[in-house]
Amino acid sequence: MVHCDLKFLTDAISKAKDSLVEKTYQAFEQIENPEGPWKNFAGWYDYPQKNGFSELKAIKQYIAGLDEKYNLVLGIGIGGSYLGAQAAYEALTPRYITIKPSLNKNIKPLMFMGQDLSARSMQELLEVLDQYEPMVCVISKSGTTTEPAVAFRIIRAYMEKRYGDQAQNRIVAVTDKSKGALRQLSQKTGYKTFVVPDDIGGRFSVLTPVGLVPLALAGVDVESMMQGADQMFATMKDKNHAVHHYAAARQAAYAQGKKVEALSFSEPSLVKFGEWWKQLFGESEGKNRKGILPMSLLFTTDLHSMGQYAQDGERIIFETFLKFNQIPDAQLLVPSAEDDLDELSYLQMQPIQKINAAAMTATKIAHYDGGLPVIDLTFERLDAKTMGGMFAFFELACALSGIVSGVHPFDQPGVEDYKKNLFAMMGRKGFENLAARLKERL
Amino acid sequence: MVHCDLKFLTDAISKAKDSLVEKTYQAFEQIENPEGPWKNFAGWYDYPQKNGFSELKAIKQYIAGLDEKYNLVLGIGIGGSYLGAQAAYEALTPRYITIKPSLNKNIKPLMFMGQDLSARSMQELLEVLDQYEPMVCVISKSGTTTEPAVAFRIIRAYMEKRYGDQAQNRIVAVTDKSKGALRQLSQKTGYKTFVVPDDIGGRFSVLTPVGLVPLALAGVDVESMMQGADQMFATMKDKNHAVHHYAAARQAAYAQGKKVEALSFSEPSLVKFGEWWKQLFGESEGKNRKGILPMSLLFTTDLHSMGQYAQDGERIIFETFLKFNQIPDAQLLVPSAEDDLDELSYLQMQPIQKINAAAMTATKIAHYDGGLPVIDLTFERLDAKTMGGMFAFFELACALSGIVSGVHPFDQPGVEDYKKNLFAMMGRKGFENLAARLKERL
Repeated sequence: MVHCDLKFLTDAISKAKDSLVEKTYQAFEQIENPEGPWKNFAGWYDYPQKNGFSELKAIKQYIAGLDEKYNLVLGIGIGGSYLGAQAAYEALTPRYITIKPSLNKNIKPLMFMGQDLSARSMQELLEVLDQYEPMVCVISKSGTTTEPAVAFRIIRAYMEKRYGDQAQNRIVAVTDKSKGALRQLSQKTGYKTFVVPDDIGGRFSVLTPVGLVPLALAGVDVESMMQGADQMFATMKDKNHAVHHYAAARQAAYAQGKKVEALSFSEPSLVKFGEWWKQLFGESEGKNRKGILPMSLLFTTDLHSMGQYAQDGERIIFETFLKFNQIPDAQLLVPSAEDDLDELSYLQMQPIQKINAAAMTATKIAHYDGGLPVIDLTFERLDAKTMGGMFAFFELACALSGIVSGVHPFDQPGVEDYKKNLFAMMGRKGFENLAARLKERL
Repeated sequence: MVHCDLKFLTDAISKAKDSLVEKTYQAFEQIENPEGPWKNFAGWYDYPQKNGFSELKAIKQYIAGLDEKYNLVLGIGIGGSYLGAQAAYEALTPRYITIKPSLNKNIKPLMFMGQDLSARSMQELLEVLDQYEPMVCVISKSGTTTEPAVAFRIIRAYMEKRYGDQAQNRIVAVTDKSKGALRQLSQKTGYKTFVVPDDIGGRFSVLTPVGLVPLALAGVDVESMMQGADQMFATMKDKNHAVHHYAAARQAAYAQGKKVEALSFSEPSLVKFGEWWKQLFGESEGKNRKGILPMSLLFTTDLHSMGQYAQDGERIIFETFLKFNQIPDAQLLVPSAEDDLDELSYLQMQPIQKINAAAMTATKIAHYDGGLPVIDLTFERLDAKTMGGMFAFFELACALSGIVSGVHPFDQPGVEDYKKNLFAMMGRKGFENLAARLKERL
């Protein structure tokens, strides 16, 4: 299901990796053992087995029973509440579905709101909402996170104005099972709800209703995703599985001064997967003034922007290649031409995808020769099943890598700091002292 | 036009910065003096004064004289041949213009191709091209760079099949003034052409026909951009200008172990500007196993993914805030609500943009308190004139910073390494020996 090639690491990192694999497997046993220290945080590990398929069934039933016709899904959420759904959607659906819906009649446009506080960005979305019959999926465990809460105030007002009493049938909430603002509001208004499990943090939640509800509403094959994840989790129990070697290799590279990991791939449809991956690792490991800084690179695009740096800048980067044995819908050939002015005739009638794959290998060798160690991960076919498997793979890799590095991979205390300052600056009750101190400093 | 606040640097970096400003200004004199060492590379510096406005006039005349009706501009180019145009387009035009053209009748959709070797990505674009009457702008100094050359073979065949003899009137080339494949092809076929100046590298070329032709075709106010750039270049002669302090502060931070610069902004429409900026700095400075690694952050979005790392990960980052005194089309208020379940009533009826600005300040202080030095740049109004000024500002800052750091800021030798491997792997003539060596290693 996934192959991990470590031939292009340095000898020193390879050796350090070997001695870390045992430790990585011990970390795995802590995740697998429900009595372990991460008991209240590892629900994602057996979610497909325990609840995944039954939740899927409930979601499918809900969608099948919808009386409302809709041709747009609007997801409201921030961080882990939208990054996974966005990643899967972009990888698995036609890029220009809003321009040409006939590209895939099963797929509906999926847009997102509530990820920022840009008024212009919100207004732009409101300006096109009238073109559609939207279904709104609001995702927030607490219901009080500023960005999605502001967005949902706006969208709720919009929907109630447009649809009156029927608005509530066009809004589905994914939230805490019993407490919080969004749960209370849903009870009051009668929104259909699904549950954010207690023992699964936002960045590990794509395979729960957090990711599944908006994806299923948009027509993505979430069943295959769940199957792919389930199978991946089952195979990762094997000590020889790529996941243990990948997690160990990352920490080995970090220990030798490679403080930045670049996830490099060659399909533009994976850019948002890169964003999901950055949150997963950055938020899990960036603690106590330590941790690998995650970045992502799209090839060959970024070889013409960040390629010079990768080849010859500071040697603080190691690279993880994300590859696939097969890319669907990629049959195009290089056309022949009368002349060879563009010097491309040596590629004439070759599959472009073959050149793309060769460029990945060419880059791997060039970067390795330039002093950039490379971990090479190859998954099967870029489809829904593999996406599910990739989510599972990187979630476990991240947990193991974090535990080995000595941090708590499931918390994120640092994200509160700017929020407190913001509350103070905007005059929220209880923050008066901080407000006074900040005023002095500005 | 731009204000640089350095209050949230550490004392040590501030002090080091002060002692670098003189050196920075000496670098500036090398750029300004046409007899200096960068003579053949600094054409961008006085381009608005020397050629910019006359080129603009020629471009406008060409567009005004077009008989062909078009409702899509397709830009073909890679790296510096599209990043600048894409950055300005995304910042200055409505996000959903393809969904609702009436949002701005002067603006046409601008799409790009030739930035990758993904067959799927190319096919996706071909699948919607029939929906439009396209105007193609192919941009390549040599005409032989693999990605745009492959894309242009495909698009040329498409256009000739669709428009027959008239295809040539729907294709405009921006290329070398006399030599190269695209120049030759243009002469043969009769494409209208504009010139990529000899003394301006790709990443410094957005204000030449490279950026101006596709932007003008798409209806962007390139006149104001040029004026903004021209005025910015004029004011930067002043030794006290922000540009000298920004360039010096970057190098001062780098000298103290801050190896990564995060460009942080709070408008989603600036994400592609971040990509332009990353190429500019990464390709100019990432040399000789040195250089600041550029990354970009979108706030508040990325505070919920990379925020934890920024707050408490490895202290190898310094941050440059990119702010504006005014954002057009940003009047939205936080709606009032009957209850305060979402705990937002303290923000009720406040302009959302005010909260967005406060979040930037809140983050600046939180990051500084967490040990992340911050450079704070504030431009006027996020519009075409300011965009032109921003391009000019960062181009000069990059050149100065690079010269001070001791590199050649205008070359990019490292980008050739993977290309040679790719030529060898794909069987290009003259690379047989390398092909054999690579085969042994794989």
